[in-house]
Amino acid sequence: MADLLPGAWRACVGTGRFNLSLRRDHQESLALVQREIGFTHIRGHGLFGDDVGVHRPYTHGGEHRVRHAFTYVDQVIDAYLELGVRPFLELGFMPHELASGEQTIFWWKGNVTPPRDHDEWAALVRATIGHLVDRYGIEEVRTWPIEVWNEPNLKDFWQDADQAAYHRLYEVTAKTIKEIDASLQVGGPAISPGSDEWMTDFADFVATRGVPVDFVSRHAYSSHPARHVPFATLQDLAPAETLLEQFATPRRQLAGGPLEGLPVHITEFNTSYRPDNAVHDTARNAAYLAPVLAGGGDVCDSFSYWTFCDVFEEVGIPTSILHGGFGLLTHRQLKKPTYHLYAFMARMGSRIVSRGEDHLVTRDERGRVTALAWALQPRRIRLPLPSGEHFVVRSTVNEEYGNLRRAWLEMGSPHSPTARQLDALRELAEPYRTHQRAAGGVLELSLAENEITLVEASPVIEEAPPWPLL
Amino acid sequence: MADLLPGAWRACVGTGRFNLSLRRDHQESLALVQREIGFTHIRGHGLFGDDVGVHRPYTHGGEHRVRHAFTYVDQVIDAYLELGVRPFLELGFMPHELASGEQTIFWWKGNVTPPRDHDEWAALVRATIGHLVDRYGIEEVRTWPIEVWNEPNLKDFWQDADQAAYHRLYEVTAKTIKEIDASLQVGGPAISPGSDEWMTDFADFVATRGVPVDFVSRHAYSSHPARHVPFATLQDLAPAETLLEQFATPRRQLAGGPLEGLPVHITEFNTSYRPDNAVHDTARNAAYLAPVLAGGGDVCDSFSYWTFCDVFEEVGIPTSILHGGFGLLTHRQLKKPTYHLYAFMARMGSRIVSRGEDHLVTRDERGRVTALAWALQPRRIRLPLPSGEHFVVRSTVNEEYGNLRRAWLEMGSPHSPTARQLDALRELAEPYRTHQRAAGGVLELSLAENEITLVEASPVIEEAPPWPLL
Amino acid sequence: MADLLPGAWRACVGTGRFNLSLRRDHQESLALVQREIGFTHIRGHGLFGDDVGVHRPYTHGGEHRVRHAFTYVDQVIDAYLELGVRPFLELGFMPHELASGEQTIFWWKGNVTPPRDHDEWAALVRATIGHLVDRYGIEEVRTWPIEVWNEPNLKDFWQDADQAAYHRLYEVTAKTIKEIDASLQVGGPAISPGSDEWMTDFADFVATRGVPVDFVSRHAYSSHPARHVPFATLQDLAPAETLLEQFATPRRQLAGGPLEGLPVHITEFNTSYRPDNAVHDTARNAAYLAPVLAGGGDVCDSFSYWTFCDVFEEVGIPTSILHGGFGLLTHRQLKKPTYHLYAFMARMGSRIVSRGEDHLVTRDERGRVTALAWALQPRRIRLPLPSGEHFVVRSTVNEEYGNLRRAWLEMGSPHSPTARQLDALRELAEPYRTHQRAAGGVLELSLAENEITLVEASPVIEEAPPWPLL
Amino acid sequence: MADLLPGAWRACVGTGRFNLSLRRDHQESLALVQREIGFTHIRGHGLFGDDVGVHRPYTHGGEHRVRHAFTYVDQVIDAYLELGVRPFLELGFMPHELASGEQTIFWWKGNVTPPRDHDEWAALVRATIGHLVDRYGIEEVRTWPIEVWNEPNLKDFWQDADQAAYHRLYEVTAKTIKEIDASLQVGGPAISPGSDEWMTDFADFVATRGVPVDFVSRHAYSSHPARHVPFATLQDLAPAETLLEQFATPRRQLAGGPLEGLPVHITEFNTSYRPDNAVHDTARNAAYLAPVLAGGGDVCDSFSYWTFCDVFEEVGIPTSILHGGFGLLTHRQLKKPTYHLYAFMARMGSRIVSRGEDHLVTRDERGRVTALAWALQPRRIRLPLPSGEHFVVRSTVNEEYGNLRRAWLEMGSPHSPTARQLDALRELAEPYRTHQRAAGGVLELSLAENEITLVEASPVIEEAPPWPLL
Repeated sequence: MADLLPGAWRACVGTGRFNLSLRRDHQESLALVQREIGFTHIRGHGLFGDDVGVHRPYTHGGEHRVRHAFTYVDQVIDAYLELGVRPFLELGFMPHELASGEQTIFWWKGNVTPPRDHDEWAALVRATIGHLVDRYGIEEVRTWPIEVWNEPNLKDFWQDADQAAYHRLYEVTAKTIKEIDASLQVGGPAISPGSDEWMTDFADFVATRGVPVDFVSRHAYSSHPARHVPFATLQDLAPAETLLEQFATPRRQLAGGPLEGLPVHITEFNTSYRPDNAVHDTARNAAYLAPVLAGGGDVCDSFSYWTFCDVFEEVGIPTSILHGGFGLLTHRQLKKPTYHLYAFMARMGSRIVSRGEDHLVTRDERGRVTALAWALQPRRIRLPLPSGEHFVVRSTVNEEYGNLRRAWLEMGSPHSPTARQLDALRELAEPYRTHQRAAGGVLELSLAENEITLVEASPVIEEAPPWPLL
Repeated sequence: MADLLPGAWRACVGTGRFNLSLRRDHQESLALVQREIGFTHIRGHGLFGDDVGVHRPYTHGGEHRVRHAFTYVDQVIDAYLELGVRPFLELGFMPHELASGEQTIFWWKGNVTPPRDHDEWAALVRATIGHLVDRYGIEEVRTWPIEVWNEPNLKDFWQDADQAAYHRLYEVTAKTIKEIDASLQVGGPAISPGSDEWMTDFADFVATRGVPVDFVSRHAYSSHPARHVPFATLQDLAPAETLLEQFATPRRQLAGGPLEGLPVHITEFNTSYRPDNAVHDTARNAAYLAPVLAGGGDVCDSFSYWTFCDVFEEVGIPTSILHGGFGLLTHRQLKKPTYHLYAFMARMGSRIVSRGEDHLVTRDERGRVTALAWALQPRRIRLPLPSGEHFVVRSTVNEEYGNLRRAWLEMGSPHSPTARQLDALRELAEPYRTHQRAAGGVLELSLAENEITLVEASPVIEEAPPWPLL
Repeated sequence: MADLLPGAWRACVGTGRFNLSLRRDHQESLALVQREIGFTHIRGHGLFGDDVGVHRPYTHGGEHRVRHAFTYVDQVIDAYLELGVRPFLELGFMPHELASGEQTIFWWKGNVTPPRDHDEWAALVRATIGHLVDRYGIEEVRTWPIEVWNEPNLKDFWQDADQAAYHRLYEVTAKTIKEIDASLQVGGPAISPGSDEWMTDFADFVATRGVPVDFVSRHAYSSHPARHVPFATLQDLAPAETLLEQFATPRRQLAGGPLEGLPVHITEFNTSYRPDNAVHDTARNAAYLAPVLAGGGDVCDSFSYWTFCDVFEEVGIPTSILHGGFGLLTHRQLKKPTYHLYAFMARMGSRIVSRGEDHLVTRDERGRVTALAWALQPRRIRLPLPSGEHFVVRSTVNEEYGNLRRAWLEMGSPHSPTARQLDALRELAEPYRTHQRAAGGVLELSLAENEITLVEASPVIEEAPPWPLL
Repeated sequence: MADLLPGAWRACVGTGRFNLSLRRDHQESLALVQREIGFTHIRGHGLFGDDVGVHRPYTHGGEHRVRHAFTYVDQVIDAYLELGVRPFLELGFMPHELASGEQTIFWWKGNVTPPRDHDEWAALVRATIGHLVDRYGIEEVRTWPIEVWNEPNLKDFWQDADQAAYHRLYEVTAKTIKEIDASLQVGGPAISPGSDEWMTDFADFVATRGVPVDFVSRHAYSSHPARHVPFATLQDLAPAETLLEQFATPRRQLAGGPLEGLPVHITEFNTSYRPDNAVHDTARNAAYLAPVLAGGGDVCDSFSYWTFCDVFEEVGIPTSILHGGFGLLTHRQLKKPTYHLYAFMARMGSRIVSRGEDHLVTRDERGRVTALAWALQPRRIRLPLPSGEHFVVRSTVNEEYGNLRRAWLEMGSPHSPTARQLDALRELAEPYRTHQRAAGGVLELSLAENEITLVEASPVIEEAPPWPLL
């Protein structure tokens, strides 16, 4: 019997900082992504950023007090739920007035220092999660994983990459959350690649101290060091297997230990970790990631593409419609090749028929067979088709077709395209599609450089009458 | 200096009977057509049909009285105006209770007999046009041509094709309309092909009697006699020039006479006059009509494609999504090749650069050059491009691409496609699109059988930076 | 412990004939009703009407054949499901070409004669239900009750009111349906008031012959004989208890018999059975029906208001925006008082706190207490409120407020209101709303003539700061 | 003959900083405001703010260069035009990297220092306005007034309130704009109340130096000094006439001088200049401003309410749905009393029938008479109605009705209302409406404290039949 295709590939997707979800362009992109792909959860930084305005100290009667305000929190989460996606909460960064230091990260200045007062931090967590439970109900909120901080193993993201300080923050936070409701899910340590020992240290810490933990998380990127040019960054990539190895590491690390069997979430992944690397806009990015999407679900419980759209400002406001952003979509919803990779995955059936290094074949309950094939270099692939007449549609994205960036370069790289140029790019970003009636048997596919191809074969039920119509 | 491209090709479009405009599917199709093509007027039968319910006689105090009711009239015309299109009013058919006989036409039984009482008819016209002027204002309504009856030269459409009776109806109607406001536009005789003498007879009649007339109208079709099979009709076609000749006839007929110079409206045209002829669904229909759209504006003031969508019931309710309907769009907004012909025309510039038997080239005020080329048989075409770097997009519809019907046949001709099949057909109905950067000079195009191609060449303003991005 | 409020009041609602669901105005009304009320099922006549076009006989090779066509069926049911309501299928009337006679009913001429050929009828049922199961899945379709015919006990609805002929039709139909899938729900006899013996006859028939039956159905109306004036009908009403008695009859009739315990659906009810009786547009209709909605769920499983909107043509096309139609909404979505009755019911909590002849009080899981009170004559009502501070909102509809018809009469009874008049009517049709902060305890309400009032009392959680803000 | 009612009251409206227009909530509020009120222009700060990202210096080949980026500019202005409103451009504040100092204003830190390099500023202006002309066409952009800076007479808004520095900035800017196209409109000095001499100084300066100027502008507020409490400010108000006097000052100042006759724009006005003063949310604010809206057009060409919605962050992110924001609408589109004042004005006819200290009466081309009346204290008003039967609708907002804030206070001042609370507030924020049939003659109105009332009287055309309908 055929295996089920795991849903890990669409269990989560990344987004720019929390405040950016208030934007119309962001929500229109999310609506499109949800209609054609359908992610389960969404995760981004900055829930506690100053531009969300939750932690609001003031003085009254000579006393220091704090109002917790959810004006923007509610607007964003209402919008997520309306669009059919749930938050994967990340608690951070530090509100300016609760911070112990001045160190910040990103153009938008997220403070990365520990709280000046752990009780006040706990009160912030309690008020926020408590408010969400009141507003959305505990049945709902317990389906939202809560991750403590982001990449504390990096000095840029957590002052001095101080592990003890992170463990303390985690403990205070996790206990506060469990006091609200024991069924809420909390986890960490949300580490970046390159400090794998933090995972085992974290496991030891929580086990030793009896600190609650419901899942573990880490990130995965496969790019080499960066060379900078104005408004852009260039990097080489390691082979795609690197990503799958990073996905697989936590389960291997936890095996045999106290956290064995806990869900493993890869809460960020991509080729490059830079939001200004043109690789994200290329057909190569899609072809490179295809085996990662096809196979990632074997080794972890979710892996979250960083990010679903280019509404994102970590290195500043984009100066051009294409700028190497992380997004599956650009501003104004132009589709990049990697968008199509996800949209192709969303058309796969629930059962795996066959898999290989260059393809994945599935079947759905109505007998439709779907094949995803990929290639970085031109190659020929033979896929088995069931017997009988089929209607076969092939959708192709490669250097030549479905390649937004190529069309845009030929157009003259317009930074601010006109309405007419946007329409043209929208049309040219669509995959090349062919169709045929095919008898069953083997299907031969020729793949070009950096190609992803989706083949959908549906059994034909012939309704044409016996008489001629033309 | 370049000639202006006349707007006659989109001055009007046909629709199924008035009542059908109440449907959601109809209005969604109209919205799409208006967004991507943008017709100025819309014309259909049946304003006075029983299913619109305007003429409502009753007895009170022993007397015969009539209430004129505009419940549906207002809903339809409100919807038209909201969608940016104006009615081209056709007065007919005869309300059952005002008719002098029982003869009807079509599955939906339009009564085609003269009024039993011409005063009551005049009251109906006065009430209706008066109501429209009250509701929409005279400035608006005087832009709506008002045509008296439809194809009175045919026995099926006007009892006995009685010319004198038609002239009487026209006179009563035209005078009634001018009494409301002399600036309202009224015309006739709305004849079908094959009775050209009716046009000169009409001109003589109105001139002799001093009857108001603001335009003349006729129809044009190019199909030969019909062979019927269940749910369908087969016909051969005369060459496309036949249509242009029919378009040109009224001006020629009126030349030198009292109506010389009046606007000429071709208030219906198509290849076949049957709503169940598969030719309407083919790429050939588009390639065949391309020269008609490109040249029709030279010989008449408007020519109205019969019809913009398949919401149409003259021979009954369609039994299949594709059924040879007149529509540019099927039910549920699938695009036929002739839809693309219109959408291509809508992208042409305002000035003609060159024209030929297989092409039309235009330019717009921003220097964008647009070429429409067509071929029934494969051929090669050379088109001049201005000098300088251009971004060139080519959109192709032929037997293989942008061919809804071919995809549907391969799919098994599903009469009632599933949601997934509709999505697939929607995607496969899109033109094939390629793009390139081209230096100026001659563009060579290879056209396949039954092809229409749109080429858009925009001057490139290069914004790429001098440094590498990948 | 408090009783649960049964959901029978919104389990189903009526609609004009099937074909009318294709209209935009109909679907906009349905969208509004679903957003603010939320019915579970929708039921109307005419699935097999000629204007839906399912049964399509033709001759090929000299043989009689039938094509079953679902062009419109799919469009309507897709729209229902999209709007969150499920069809309660009624099988009828008879396709013209399958009918044994010429007798029709209504302006739109539904044929009410038995099939000419019961095998061809069975084929029609099999094809239709089979198609629905294919398209929507058996899990979905088994939640759609299937009722055989409409009011066969009336000569106008079933030729000669021939009971034996109905029983035969029922048997053929029920067996055909169960052959498709035994879990599908089928029932009858869909009788009108005044022939209660048909219910017991039906029970005897199915029990004796072993014919499948999953539910029984009947209708309920409380109007006396009609007096006709042009475009309208006048009738007196029996007391509202009449309706509840009719609702209760089937359970009483089936008690102790073979069908005891089967679900009982009142598949139509209203005050008047005429679609041109102004009572439907009045505040009295709402006040009169309030106890029926509040109590009906005690005695049957559903009772379906006939109908949710005025898109309805049984006695012809309405000549005026208000015309005594059955609808909760007029054309263009103006709200009648009875609309508000349903909208008020939709705000009730899930648990009953107290009930009486003039009120129903409920509570929801958040402590919000909701009271619906009604009166045909002015009266004072005292309702208990829980202790503690509450925010109390009262919404009132009576002769003076929330009374579309009164505003329209004062406006001059415009048959075809302008856009501005429609806007004014839309605003004036809203209930009168007041609000106050109240301490707990008894709430005194003064009700005017023909009033329905909704009181919503929510516990106050005070968030105002201790310092002044103005 | 009756005077025309000037359109100055809706010629412009204020908005929060440019970047905030990217938000969905902002655009939904703007859509509502445009549908029900219909402003011509919209003006806000921050076009050149760092969070819009226009001015982007970089180093290449060792040289300082600047890229001008319009990613967000285009998104915002596209949205404005789509919603039917045009930008009233304000050039400011200073991009951080072009600033000569570090002084900033507001929570969002707008830099208020002169440019470090006036050529680079001119290049910024040239690139920005040039881009807008390219994208939207000169015919469009010449309808957008361009104002140089904001309130340079205040030290908080312009370093040291240095007049000479402002004049220099104005001169450089105005000349740069006119070099692009002489038909573009430029103006200043955009001063706040309290430094009226700046206007005459400005007039002298431009006249003496021959600097282009197409309009002058200033602001108007009527609040006294502020007392602060946490998250709020309290102030007393001067009488409303103060505002009209401020509106009238520029024409008086310019009279007889070189700028006599130039358009005068009051580019900001309100009661309080604080975005956290609860007065903005009150019925008093509406009653107080009614005579200002009714009379302002007599003394200036536009006066722009500061602001149309509460998406605004000058003193930080609002901590509660009602917080004393400037908006006509709160977040999530709850309507404040002053919203209704504007919506009432939008229903006035084009001709003035009579005016007084407590009312304004107009008539439109269809004979509809509309009266707006207002009162800070209870009073009785008698208004003349034309003779004949009228349908009279009265819409009332005062302390009791249409008073969002009162309902919200009674509800417990919820900072983050639930979906149900938002629905309730939305309903309770609607005006109280009554209607009656009235014979012509005098209409007596009783106004309560802080009331605005709209009376609409339309002549009745009676269509009711002579027979009874109930």
